[in-house]
Amino acid sequence: MHINIPATERDRIIIVGAGFAGLQLARQLARSSYQVVLLDKNNFHQFQPLFYQVAIARLEPSSIKFTLRKENQKHANVFFRMTSVERVDTAAQRIYTPMGDLHYDHLVLAMGADTNFFGNEEIQRHAIPMKSVAEALYLRNRILNDFERALSVPDYEERQGLIDIVIVGGGPTGVEVAGALAEMKKYILPREYKELDSKEIDIYLIQGADCLLKGMSAESSAASERFLQELGVIVKKDTRVVAYDGKYVEMHDGSKIRSNKVIWAAGIQANKLVGLPESVITYGRRLQVNRLNQVEGFSCIYAIGDLAYMEEEAFPQGHPQVAQVAIQQAENLARNLTKKRQNPQPFSYQDLGSMATIGRNRAVVDLKRLKFQGFFAWVVWLVVHLFALIGVKNKIFVFINWVWNYITYDQSLRLIIRPFQRQQEWKEAEKP
Amino acid sequence: MHINIPATERDRIIIVGAGFAGLQLARQLARSSYQVVLLDKNNFHQFQPLFYQVAIARLEPSSIKFTLRKENQKHANVFFRMTSVERVDTAAQRIYTPMGDLHYDHLVLAMGADTNFFGNEEIQRHAIPMKSVAEALYLRNRILNDFERALSVPDYEERQGLIDIVIVGGGPTGVEVAGALAEMKKYILPREYKELDSKEIDIYLIQGADCLLKGMSAESSAASERFLQELGVIVKKDTRVVAYDGKYVEMHDGSKIRSNKVIWAAGIQANKLVGLPESVITYGRRLQVNRLNQVEGFSCIYAIGDLAYMEEEAFPQGHPQVAQVAIQQAENLARNLTKKRQNPQPFSYQDLGSMATIGRNRAVVDLKRLKFQGFFAWVVWLVVHLFALIGVKNKIFVFINWVWNYITYDQSLRLIIRPFQRQQEWKEAEKP
Repeated sequence: MHINIPATERDRIIIVGAGFAGLQLARQLARSSYQVVLLDKNNFHQFQPLFYQVAIARLEPSSIKFTLRKENQKHANVFFRMTSVERVDTAAQRIYTPMGDLHYDHLVLAMGADTNFFGNEEIQRHAIPMKSVAEALYLRNRILNDFERALSVPDYEERQGLIDIVIVGGGPTGVEVAGALAEMKKYILPREYKELDSKEIDIYLIQGADCLLKGMSAESSAASERFLQELGVIVKKDTRVVAYDGKYVEMHDGSKIRSNKVIWAAGIQANKLVGLPESVITYGRRLQVNRLNQVEGFSCIYAIGDLAYMEEEAFPQGHPQVAQVAIQQAENLARNLTKKRQNPQPFSYQDLGSMATIGRNRAVVDLKRLKFQGFFAWVVWLVVHLFALIGVKNKIFVFINWVWNYITYDQSLRLIIRPFQRQQEWKEAEKP
Repeated sequence: MHINIPATERDRIIIVGAGFAGLQLARQLARSSYQVVLLDKNNFHQFQPLFYQVAIARLEPSSIKFTLRKENQKHANVFFRMTSVERVDTAAQRIYTPMGDLHYDHLVLAMGADTNFFGNEEIQRHAIPMKSVAEALYLRNRILNDFERALSVPDYEERQGLIDIVIVGGGPTGVEVAGALAEMKKYILPREYKELDSKEIDIYLIQGADCLLKGMSAESSAASERFLQELGVIVKKDTRVVAYDGKYVEMHDGSKIRSNKVIWAAGIQANKLVGLPESVITYGRRLQVNRLNQVEGFSCIYAIGDLAYMEEEAFPQGHPQVAQVAIQQAENLARNLTKKRQNPQPFSYQDLGSMATIGRNRAVVDLKRLKFQGFFAWVVWLVVHLFALIGVKNKIFVFINWVWNYITYDQSLRLIIRPFQRQQEWKEAEKP
């Protein structure tokens, strides 16, 4: 069976994945002479930088999602299909999905990356990842559920397991979620769970390296650690988690922490696609591409974003796996595929800077020539994220939510959303 | 094990269920001399009249939920616990829950009602109920999923199964969801699913009785049917659904409709509580109460809302199972429990009227002396529901959503939210 896409004289570009890279490319090519087919396993784009705000009940999932059918609606030559991709036949120029197969003239891989548990199956089974809105929502439900249960648990150890939270990984996700949870502990819990002693709640941030936010400046790294400590987060550097059985987290030095909830933000690895030669798969399962984002050995298969591994002079070990690289690669590839077909331009990354926020009123910002921390950095963080968010309505809702939370010191979305249990039908509904 | 509630000199009232009745009662008693323990299996109150708007992606679940911990936060003598109740021991005045047991001085049952499949297990297995936000969200996901799948199904019959929708039950829920789906078909689908022929989509409303909205006036009933027909809904009256195998809906006259989605809004039955004598259980599993809402034979066990069956002069067959009755019974019971203990007042229902909306710009409203239909009725419907909604923030978000949808003819929440699959842990987390 073929995927039902109208036949056309145009060259067909299939884009796999609608994250920052894939969605940006689809939009850039929407008015081009190509037929664009955008595939994603979800029917929405999700705004990864704010996942942690879903987890701590500050934002609703819908506020940071953007329905991909909108693209369909606006452009006659863009076709969205909700499906995963199982494999590619590079000789026949054809991809295979549960929905059917489809021929491509150009194939752009933008499936991004997922959580890396570094092969530790026990940790994978018990720890909570943060690479999708569904996972963030699961974490929210777990936190709220465990607090409810803790109210009726007399045993100290067991109660500690329910209320303590361990975050593994001191990158932006780990730092931001630790800061936000510390605020929840400080402002919300004493009001809502009067019977719990909020001093009993410990939030740990475990970092393998010798500083937090490794990619950022020394000032920002130090400031983020200070901010977290002021909020009461227990920061452990030079510490690696070696085991977690769902109850006790074990560190490399043998020390243990009792906790039923471990948030795993310690690393990512690129998503796989069957059918590509082993030789193009490199560090972190990324695909080796040249400066035109062509996958090594192929002239019409490209990889962009977190999935791509490209070496350039300033980045001899590849680019950081962040939204800015993904968006810029998509823009460059779009230009090369349309205007500059005769004379394609090699990609060169313009680092616009990086930032992270730590709770209320505090953030760290590194720009090219300017580094600053504190309240002004926090305002910059807010503005940048609000503008980067896709969709006017999302901007409005996130803005109102933020203002509301800021004024009331409240996160009013502490709702435990249980899925309606009809697993059998779910599975059937997902069959192609 | 006991539920961990502080010991007190005060009389303890346990309220089971935080719907309209239970939440209203808890609020009225918050400043009384009682210790109030509010139990619900969810940590939120849900606003049932707008479930159908969640199902059609017009509102987010969070906008019509209200976290019950807020009640805890405001009042020192109100204790919320998230738990179901398994049974009551009326002799020992004690309830039993998965969280532990608890003694009561007064027990108020307000667990409401759930979908009634009238014993037809096949229909129960395949049809989609609409009595919780989770079920409404499930319906939304099913509709969107099936449209996505329909894009690649060449077979006409099979595609019909995916895109046609059958609604069983011509009460307010059935009428409102039918109207809303018809609008989605008219305004949204032609824009977003260009490749589907929206004329192929049929929406059926099956009603057993000889008119829609049975409890309302003849004018409103007729108007609602006319409005639905103008929107293209196929209304079948005097028709009973006798079987549904997940593919074909079979009517009492042997006729069949192909559809993978049947929305079951044909009846409700009260929720059960083990430990009450059989003799108090009456029509629709409701509990027989006297005019003081005392369950027959008990002086300190009350039932209010959908769960209660009370005969009064004007309502010889019991009250309608609607929010207004629940709220008024809660208010009367609160007064009797506090101010009028020596001289309790019998309950008497003041019918304020009823209403239903059918898509954009149209509704039907029956007040005591005034009945009207059309645009003005629709405005009244909007204002009443906005004011009835609990929580200032919910009001703001619902209002903005409605304005946005009205202007753009769009429901921007068409997101298929898949739960993160870790069923084992979910089950464990829910264990007490």
